[in-house]
Amino acid sequence: MTQFMDVHHGMAGITADQLMQAHKADLAIEKDEGVHFERAWADPESGTVYCLSSAPSAEAVKRIHERSGHAADEIHPVPLSI
Amino acid sequence: MTQFMDVHHGMAGITADQLMQAHKADLAIEKDEGVHFERAWADPESGTVYCLSSAPSAEAVKRIHERSGHAADEIHPVPLSI
Repeated sequence: MTQFMDVHHGMAGITADQLMQAHKADLAIEKDEGVHFERAWADPESGTVYCLSSAPSAEAVKRIHERSGHAADEIHPVPLSI
Repeated sequence: MTQFMDVHHGMAGITADQLMQAHKADLAIEKDEGVHFERAWADPESGTVYCLSSAPSAEAVKRIHERSGHAADEIHPVPLSI
């Protein structure tokens, strides 16, 4: 399992409730691909959302986010962390 | 205090030791601006580094990263998080 940071753009105005609903939609199906979404951070002003996950591949992260209705714009493996 | 996610590009090939040294350089001076760098994640392949901090302002984050020798390319407040 590797950690991944994925980034969503175009989410200007996102609310705390919308972020939580999106996260719950991911959690509901993440096991299908062996993914776990750990954290998420949102900047409603620029419309940027960052999600931290552990997953077997970037493709697995991509598929879960697509199925739950919010495709990621970038997905980066982050094998190094502090 | 607000949380901030900042992003550095152009860090291709960064090692675990270099990430730790950069983080320690931030920690050594962060109190001057009331900033605390909490976490960092790096993708050596694309050369992207993400840093999560709590700080009084984006300017404070910017100044610490500049003084420690690694200016951030983007700094986003992330008032929403999970």
